[in-house]
Amino acid sequence: MLGKIANAISKSGDIALLPHIAADGDALGSSFALALAISRMGKKVKVLLEEDIPFTYGFLPGIELSGVYQQGDKQYDTVIAVDCGDLGRLGNRADIFEGARITANIDHHPTNTGFAVHNFVDTGSAAAGEIIYKLLGLLKVKVEKDIATCLYVAIATDTGSFRYSNTTSFTHELAAELLKAGVDVAVISQKVFDATSFEKVKLISEAINTLELFENGRIAVMAISNVLIKKSGAKEEECDGIINTARNIRGVEVAAMLRQLDNGEIKVNLRSNLTFDVSAIASLYKGGGHKKAAGYTTAGTLENAKKRLLEDIREVL
Amino acid sequence: MLGKIANAISKSGDIALLPHIAADGDALGSSFALALAISRMGKKVKVLLEEDIPFTYGFLPGIELSGVYQQGDKQYDTVIAVDCGDLGRLGNRADIFEGARITANIDHHPTNTGFAVHNFVDTGSAAAGEIIYKLLGLLKVKVEKDIATCLYVAIATDTGSFRYSNTTSFTHELAAELLKAGVDVAVISQKVFDATSFEKVKLISEAINTLELFENGRIAVMAISNVLIKKSGAKEEECDGIINTARNIRGVEVAAMLRQLDNGEIKVNLRSNLTFDVSAIASLYKGGGHKKAAGYTTAGTLENAKKRLLEDIREVL
Repeated sequence: MLGKIANAISKSGDIALLPHIAADGDALGSSFALALAISRMGKKVKVLLEEDIPFTYGFLPGIELSGVYQQGDKQYDTVIAVDCGDLGRLGNRADIFEGARITANIDHHPTNTGFAVHNFVDTGSAAAGEIIYKLLGLLKVKVEKDIATCLYVAIATDTGSFRYSNTTSFTHELAAELLKAGVDVAVISQKVFDATSFEKVKLISEAINTLELFENGRIAVMAISNVLIKKSGAKEEECDGIINTARNIRGVEVAAMLRQLDNGEIKVNLRSNLTFDVSAIASLYKGGGHKKAAGYTTAGTLENAKKRLLEDIREVL
Repeated sequence: MLGKIANAISKSGDIALLPHIAADGDALGSSFALALAISRMGKKVKVLLEEDIPFTYGFLPGIELSGVYQQGDKQYDTVIAVDCGDLGRLGNRADIFEGARITANIDHHPTNTGFAVHNFVDTGSAAAGEIIYKLLGLLKVKVEKDIATCLYVAIATDTGSFRYSNTTSFTHELAAELLKAGVDVAVISQKVFDATSFEKVKLISEAINTLELFENGRIAVMAISNVLIKKSGAKEEECDGIINTARNIRGVEVAAMLRQLDNGEIKVNLRSNLTFDVSAIASLYKGGGHKKAAGYTTAGTLENAKKRLLEDIREVL
């Protein structure tokens, strides 16, 4: 099936690539790598984004081939969804997908709905970037430094720097190839994994100040008011990842971070270290996710939301 | 030369392996991997340590072949220093090294003094673990899961999870081999990189509360009193790595963490992100280190030490 997608690309003159909404390192790196390759083939290509690229990924080569989608933009011959589990993950860009002559879907999520004409879903791939690498082989495009940099960011971010259980020997073999193509590991890693803002660092400190352990350290909870978030000066997106501070404490089985949104609602992130299924808790509140990572939004005060959550967790623990 | 070390092992009946003092993931992982291999060859082998193994590495296979060295312990036929730049890095165990019939030195530090009969120093190796892998090839020992786990910890820790500039395509090719041997990446990574204590998390928050930026954010300084350290309940060794919180802030060129020791002295850690040479600052106080990471100890109050350090940095910046 990947061959059919390669054929479709070879026969098209004008191609759009659509990474998922709130695009991450894999969605962006994979899309830019493929865009650079298609461009090298002498074809017109554009990566259409739902939102502006996050600051962290602003250094990616191929960014000049991208733009934020505006309703009423032109139609494309061939449209390829990248790292998207379903049509909903295209946001407003579902329009452009549905208006295309040929559609394709390159993904690694087990929940993929096969929503395109040509679907290639490989759940054994740690990142969509691994599939794009194989596709570039079929397209006979050389993986030079810029393309390698994009693919490296794709696989490094989706594997948490080769630490998650999705990392395979192929992931490392691919990384070896990408380094041979000249990828600057230290510079990329600093930008993607380490670089942070003073405001986020202050927010981490505020979050830790609210950290409480329950049930002999099996449950860790942080709860941040919108006053504290405002005080830190951190952006909404900078709340991402702070929950890991709680999850990584030895002995913790379930970690939760509650934060008050501007509209007064409480957003809850949940993580599990062992067998505890946090998606079961999230579903009580019509939230979503999977066993190890889930979340939901609820009304009420921060204190009340915490109290109810603790009761829910204790019932299962 | 690595062949000579393999020969020496093959001809010896009783071998001691000496990782450096304050042994880290590479020193321990490399030593345990080699110890397991020598043991599989039907020989007697012991990893002699200067101190107890840190909690983080307590899960390493081969730990049963190790013990803390006691002055007056028996002598060994062949003694191999692992990941040690010079004899000083053996601490009290220099005795046992000097008393051995055959000595060897397996290392990757450019400063290695070649202090053994057989020296193999490969500065192109990201970790001593890479050299041990090649040695196991010469010894014709199969890299099964336990040995692979030790080697994986060696290379993953010395490359900061494949993020530092010492990471090469060989490092990834080796990681691919180790994963094929059954290494459980997610479990190891959680233990080695993520797991932390509630006390350390509290200390991070205290440290961030003292964080100040100077010179338009080019200098970041944290200064923790021994009262705050005590309040957090964190151990001395848990101060390690907290300086990265300051170093990783965008725009920071020099980061410093000052902390008050129990004897009232001030211990200063310095990190540089760009061209600033922090070892030049450390040498003003008879400290040590290299361009990007250095440190020193000084007398006086925390406030005074900070003031003087800021003057020193501003003079160079």
